[in-house]
Amino acid sequence: MARSLLALASALPAVMALNNGLALTPQMGWNTWNRFGCGIDEDLIVGSAKALVSNNLTALGYNYVLIDDCWHADSRDPDTGAPVENKDKFPNGIKGVADQIHDLGLKVGIYSSAGTYTCGGKFGSLGFEEIDAKTYASWGIDYLKYDNCYNEGRAGTPPISYERYNNMSRALNETGRPILYSMCNWGEDGPWNFAVDIANSWRISGDIYDNFDRYDVRCPCTDMLDCKLPGFHCAVTRILDFSAPLGQKAGRGHWNDLDMLEVGNGGMTFDEYVTHFSMWALVKSPLILGNDVTDMSDDTKTIITNDAIIAVNQDPNGSPATRVWKRSLPNGGDLQLWSGSLVNNQFVFAVLNTGPSNHTEDISLIDVFTDQGKSFGSGTFTLFDLWQKDDSGKWGKNIGDFQGTVSVTVGSHQTKVYRATPASGAKRALYEL
Amino acid sequence: MARSLLALASALPAVMALNNGLALTPQMGWNTWNRFGCGIDEDLIVGSAKALVSNNLTALGYNYVLIDDCWHADSRDPDTGAPVENKDKFPNGIKGVADQIHDLGLKVGIYSSAGTYTCGGKFGSLGFEEIDAKTYASWGIDYLKYDNCYNEGRAGTPPISYERYNNMSRALNETGRPILYSMCNWGEDGPWNFAVDIANSWRISGDIYDNFDRYDVRCPCTDMLDCKLPGFHCAVTRILDFSAPLGQKAGRGHWNDLDMLEVGNGGMTFDEYVTHFSMWALVKSPLILGNDVTDMSDDTKTIITNDAIIAVNQDPNGSPATRVWKRSLPNGGDLQLWSGSLVNNQFVFAVLNTGPSNHTEDISLIDVFTDQGKSFGSGTFTLFDLWQKDDSGKWGKNIGDFQGTVSVTVGSHQTKVYRATPASGAKRALYEL
Amino acid sequence: MARSLLALASALPAVMALNNGLALTPQMGWNTWNRFGCGIDEDLIVGSAKALVSNNLTALGYNYVLIDDCWHADSRDPDTGAPVENKDKFPNGIKGVADQIHDLGLKVGIYSSAGTYTCGGKFGSLGFEEIDAKTYASWGIDYLKYDNCYNEGRAGTPPISYERYNNMSRALNETGRPILYSMCNWGEDGPWNFAVDIANSWRISGDIYDNFDRYDVRCPCTDMLDCKLPGFHCAVTRILDFSAPLGQKAGRGHWNDLDMLEVGNGGMTFDEYVTHFSMWALVKSPLILGNDVTDMSDDTKTIITNDAIIAVNQDPNGSPATRVWKRSLPNGGDLQLWSGSLVNNQFVFAVLNTGPSNHTEDISLIDVFTDQGKSFGSGTFTLFDLWQKDDSGKWGKNIGDFQGTVSVTVGSHQTKVYRATPASGAKRALYEL
Amino acid sequence: MARSLLALASALPAVMALNNGLALTPQMGWNTWNRFGCGIDEDLIVGSAKALVSNNLTALGYNYVLIDDCWHADSRDPDTGAPVENKDKFPNGIKGVADQIHDLGLKVGIYSSAGTYTCGGKFGSLGFEEIDAKTYASWGIDYLKYDNCYNEGRAGTPPISYERYNNMSRALNETGRPILYSMCNWGEDGPWNFAVDIANSWRISGDIYDNFDRYDVRCPCTDMLDCKLPGFHCAVTRILDFSAPLGQKAGRGHWNDLDMLEVGNGGMTFDEYVTHFSMWALVKSPLILGNDVTDMSDDTKTIITNDAIIAVNQDPNGSPATRVWKRSLPNGGDLQLWSGSLVNNQFVFAVLNTGPSNHTEDISLIDVFTDQGKSFGSGTFTLFDLWQKDDSGKWGKNIGDFQGTVSVTVGSHQTKVYRATPASGAKRALYEL
Repeated sequence: MARSLLALASALPAVMALNNGLALTPQMGWNTWNRFGCGIDEDLIVGSAKALVSNNLTALGYNYVLIDDCWHADSRDPDTGAPVENKDKFPNGIKGVADQIHDLGLKVGIYSSAGTYTCGGKFGSLGFEEIDAKTYASWGIDYLKYDNCYNEGRAGTPPISYERYNNMSRALNETGRPILYSMCNWGEDGPWNFAVDIANSWRISGDIYDNFDRYDVRCPCTDMLDCKLPGFHCAVTRILDFSAPLGQKAGRGHWNDLDMLEVGNGGMTFDEYVTHFSMWALVKSPLILGNDVTDMSDDTKTIITNDAIIAVNQDPNGSPATRVWKRSLPNGGDLQLWSGSLVNNQFVFAVLNTGPSNHTEDISLIDVFTDQGKSFGSGTFTLFDLWQKDDSGKWGKNIGDFQGTVSVTVGSHQTKVYRATPASGAKRALYEL
Repeated sequence: MARSLLALASALPAVMALNNGLALTPQMGWNTWNRFGCGIDEDLIVGSAKALVSNNLTALGYNYVLIDDCWHADSRDPDTGAPVENKDKFPNGIKGVADQIHDLGLKVGIYSSAGTYTCGGKFGSLGFEEIDAKTYASWGIDYLKYDNCYNEGRAGTPPISYERYNNMSRALNETGRPILYSMCNWGEDGPWNFAVDIANSWRISGDIYDNFDRYDVRCPCTDMLDCKLPGFHCAVTRILDFSAPLGQKAGRGHWNDLDMLEVGNGGMTFDEYVTHFSMWALVKSPLILGNDVTDMSDDTKTIITNDAIIAVNQDPNGSPATRVWKRSLPNGGDLQLWSGSLVNNQFVFAVLNTGPSNHTEDISLIDVFTDQGKSFGSGTFTLFDLWQKDDSGKWGKNIGDFQGTVSVTVGSHQTKVYRATPASGAKRALYEL
Repeated sequence: MARSLLALASALPAVMALNNGLALTPQMGWNTWNRFGCGIDEDLIVGSAKALVSNNLTALGYNYVLIDDCWHADSRDPDTGAPVENKDKFPNGIKGVADQIHDLGLKVGIYSSAGTYTCGGKFGSLGFEEIDAKTYASWGIDYLKYDNCYNEGRAGTPPISYERYNNMSRALNETGRPILYSMCNWGEDGPWNFAVDIANSWRISGDIYDNFDRYDVRCPCTDMLDCKLPGFHCAVTRILDFSAPLGQKAGRGHWNDLDMLEVGNGGMTFDEYVTHFSMWALVKSPLILGNDVTDMSDDTKTIITNDAIIAVNQDPNGSPATRVWKRSLPNGGDLQLWSGSLVNNQFVFAVLNTGPSNHTEDISLIDVFTDQGKSFGSGTFTLFDLWQKDDSGKWGKNIGDFQGTVSVTVGSHQTKVYRATPASGAKRALYEL
Repeated sequence: MARSLLALASALPAVMALNNGLALTPQMGWNTWNRFGCGIDEDLIVGSAKALVSNNLTALGYNYVLIDDCWHADSRDPDTGAPVENKDKFPNGIKGVADQIHDLGLKVGIYSSAGTYTCGGKFGSLGFEEIDAKTYASWGIDYLKYDNCYNEGRAGTPPISYERYNNMSRALNETGRPILYSMCNWGEDGPWNFAVDIANSWRISGDIYDNFDRYDVRCPCTDMLDCKLPGFHCAVTRILDFSAPLGQKAGRGHWNDLDMLEVGNGGMTFDEYVTHFSMWALVKSPLILGNDVTDMSDDTKTIITNDAIIAVNQDPNGSPATRVWKRSLPNGGDLQLWSGSLVNNQFVFAVLNTGPSNHTEDISLIDVFTDQGKSFGSGTFTLFDLWQKDDSGKWGKNIGDFQGTVSVTVGSHQTKVYRATPASGAKRALYEL
């Protein structure tokens, strides 16, 4: 029996996740890797944290500042085995950086790998889980991204991966400090099955790259259900395909992570970044900026500050949208309908066009509300276009009441996102939890 | 060597199943989940039990009243660790409900999960198998449905799943009370291989939903032989496809469970529900009603009370029908021929049309009797249409004697079911067991 | 590195198989199951053994008389745990049968399963390996077929299956009596990888049935490399397809077993049985008759007594033929070229037509000798048609010398088999082992 | 997170491989197997070593002389269990051979299998890792090729394979002698995942054979990500396909091994061998000659002495080329573009034609530099054709400066290889490691 009915509950669903009270909605923030790789230091990170504040991104929820790989010294403390930071890059230590970030009212994260080395070749945490967790806690760390490189072959069935990642989960819990635990095992052995109650989120695939839909052989699997080489250079539409069956597994406190955002890094068009950002939001992926937040174009700001899209991501119900259908388009590519529930009898749906040209389609509201039943879907709904602003300048323009179908025109690589509310105020009979 | 020849035995086959003497034919009954989800209490359950009696459903064999998820208190007894029921929903306790059900001459079942939590987020039984089984027995429980949520990654190879599910099997046996053990691990790791002698039935797939044939991405696997995400929202025809290779693995005391019935829940047409009910019966799935038995339409009653179909399901030989062929139809969909053996040299076959329009086909009796050999199939057979009534008003109208072929017209999404007996009284030479 | 070069050795290859000295060529004999199932007793078995002798089948090599499932009493000896035979069927015990078979100069085999029960529901050997092996030895048993039913989930990775089957291998060896060990785990976990040196042969697939090419859903896998449901009702051409990649793994003392023969059981035509028998011989499958040898048609005798085909099977080099190509035919089905090496610079090849009509093709000798190289294949070869008799009435008619191509006409479902020798007496340069 | 950014580092990347300091670039040398199989002795090996010197192959980097299978005595030393060589073939012992090879300034390797037997049926090292490693070290061995035959079923998940292969890795390290560790488990369980820091290289597939593109059923898997039967008789283009997703996993000290070279063994044309040698070089496979180096044609010498291709293989950056695209050609076969980074802001790319006829295509430099970004790829590049000689007779002719596209004509089965340098001297901004 699946947990589908939970989404129908009138009260907020219970949290069967890692018992740290964190990530009741998907985490938001900024991470160093996508843009800066190993080229990080205190100035970059603190400067970026300040830019999050000055650009009002923190007010929108981007509150985690995440230090990714290569913060490390060449080796651990030879006496204690404790992790040590690179003192050239971090003269005040990671703790010094954390203090400054905390002073800004933000939270701070760090990175390690459940292996002998990190992916960047620094010392990993395999076998050092307890001392690493304790040290992170002593530094004031609020978030751990935990990678999968150099794992000594400890993967292949769920119990093997579970044990390796649970070791760090337990170590983090034992510190007594609430530390958001972001697993990054690339979907190996199905973390959506095994990690639901040991992590706050888990990557579902190989690494994203700044490309909309190019197939790259280094991301070779056709789905992620039992992928033996998640790899990297996975394009946005491929990761979205990978995520389609997995929404059922996420919820409050435990999320599918489609990888960090590439918005603003230059490899995609405005419409493509809109699609990327919108769909990450709808499926309740963490929204972790991966661009240079100290130097952003207006287009980038427009996308990442759309608070109507962010509200979908942060909806308290925590119910990922599902793909209702995916249909081939005559000139190539496909049209996709995604749909999900929000709190208070509201809904969201998106129409996505991966083809080379504009497309107009009458979208059936019965399809949109397939999870709510034909009777419900036959009603009248007020729709708000979340990529248009209303007269007051707020995202989410009321485009009228609709019954039966709504005609949607979507540009090439574009996504239209709508919030829907029953026009008549009618409510579905809900099952009691 | 497979067990195919067992079905040819003149005596009833031996039972190599869980040694509790139960489910020698597939269990029948009613369960709260499909219609009521977590919205259950004593009144609903006792009222439904009474409705089973008053509607004469118990006389037809629907004897198990099954309390699914969400009967639980917030937590176990803090002192003993024993499971505790929600006293608001069940003021007389589960035992009080069980007593009332037993007083009606029925049996009662309960639900838990082989995980940390149940799918609905209540306390699970992983690590609590003994105390849970004992408590269930002390409450007078006759049946356990045992789910798979929050299983801590303990899946991936048959021995891992076997150990987890056998722990409860052993615990139930050790109570000394015969408790039908209904595994619900969604087919992971092939329970048809590993659970044959530790359970009375096992789910073969993700959850059914009240839909005939819509593909839903949340039920993503194309078969169940090594499915890493059984999921839910699996339509009737998809589950039937999943079941096609598996009939060989079921028999007396150990059944493939295609999930509970949706007949009467409103998502399908009359013909679609006829197909659903008929095929579940032919493949010897448990027949567990999932509708509101206190409020049924005449159509619903017509379907679930067809005692000729039920007799196929409850045939003492316990031999699931097999799909002989599945052929694409010109307008889409397919035509399927299923065939099986009954006791006393009788047979059953069904012709199923998943296409959009009526179809007429000359069905070869050689095909119908492919397991009995060409010589046998060349004989003359008297056919009874199990969805027509005879002059006395009984299901199963004699439509005459046939040799070679029988012309069958099947409506869209409809299934025709026939009982066949050799017209001449000839019997096959049977192997001695 | 594979063992391909072994086949090029001028001396007979070493034996890296189970160290019992048996099955240096594929075993030959007769087994009760395919024709008689559980309907066996002393008279049937001793009578069949005598028929093997009187029909001169033993002179051709059919020397093992194999008692399959259902020889068992209802339970083991309650005191010692030793296996006990059904005294009604075997009033003189299995030992009494074995003595009579030995007196005929033949060898005798028995059957059990590496599970809790046998496939026919009798007591299995899992956990009883030592006492069973000892008892078999004390009865004078020369051969064990060891099945896979009711295995308690002990499969899924090679070490799990290895351990279960090695337990019996070791137990047999420890008896001190040479007992041919015929594994029947249906190819699960790749016995061609893991069982090479613990068994004399291993089944590669689900059970054969007496049909040439009908697809049956109960044999659902498209290949056997990681099949999770080998099943049964696998037709001859399907098993042959399954075997195609596996020949590389077999050799002296360790063979791929394509399952027992159906020749003479009535489900196939003469040409189909010729194909079945020929191809089983070429790929070095054990040749175990499965028909009623006390009552055989002339056609049946013709096929199973072709000593030129048997000589291919029993060639001391022990090198299974490989499929060079498989090409679709215009009217459906396909044409297949198989080729293999024999001792003394001789070769065998077969052309198989699974299509509905006769087909003529110029077969390239370069293709036939693809493993020997283009230079060798460009030579002149004398060909012997192994399904024609020469003037002296012996199988294997010299049809002349050929260079470049040989035109072959193959009837529907027929197979032509040729022995080839270099016409000029030239020999290839062989690597020294 | 993958390690993609490492390749962008301005300094040489760190080595996260087996800690023996070896194979910082792919190993080069000569091995006995492909040409001589088991037919080896001291004369052959020492003679071949001398031929490597006299043909100036050692000056080009072919420094390892590798003794493959069949150097063994019939059994180990009965008292000590130590491995013993065949004294007929090696009258001075392996140590005597090693001494002579060392005296030539070369290094020497040996072969064993992580199983009960070697593939050629000699004693294997499973359970004898320590004494074997010690003995090899005492003989002066510098390199071990470690095979996978007769492995007792110890495969199926990465930890199982890891443990078996790590046992030898540890034993080699414990000798104190630097011994290059060349794993040959045919890609089972993904050594590119589990063996990165326990071996210097790992075979990725079944055995190569001397053929460009013929499909052989004995190499049956369509990819190597979870191949259950790597087999042998894998053609050059198939192995190249297998390798395409795996380049991301290799780097300094840890390489994907596409198997030994067949150049000079006679089964392919000049152009096919050029393709074979070029592509092995680009993807950073070890370059191990497999021909008779005492008797080489001019064509063979031309290919294996192209120092511009060798320089690509031995580039200190150690970054394998990746396949950018593979496109079907109208007459069959396909055109492939491969691209990779070299040190000092240089690049290499190759265009490969597996089709039956010449093909000309405008290759987009944006495609070539897909990993470096569109902005970089829009620049002007000087190209050197590595299969043409410049006026001074050196491989690598400057064919001019190009922007946008370069028109490339590739013959059937031919490969064109280009080194590219930014014409303007512009450099990309590189991430700091």
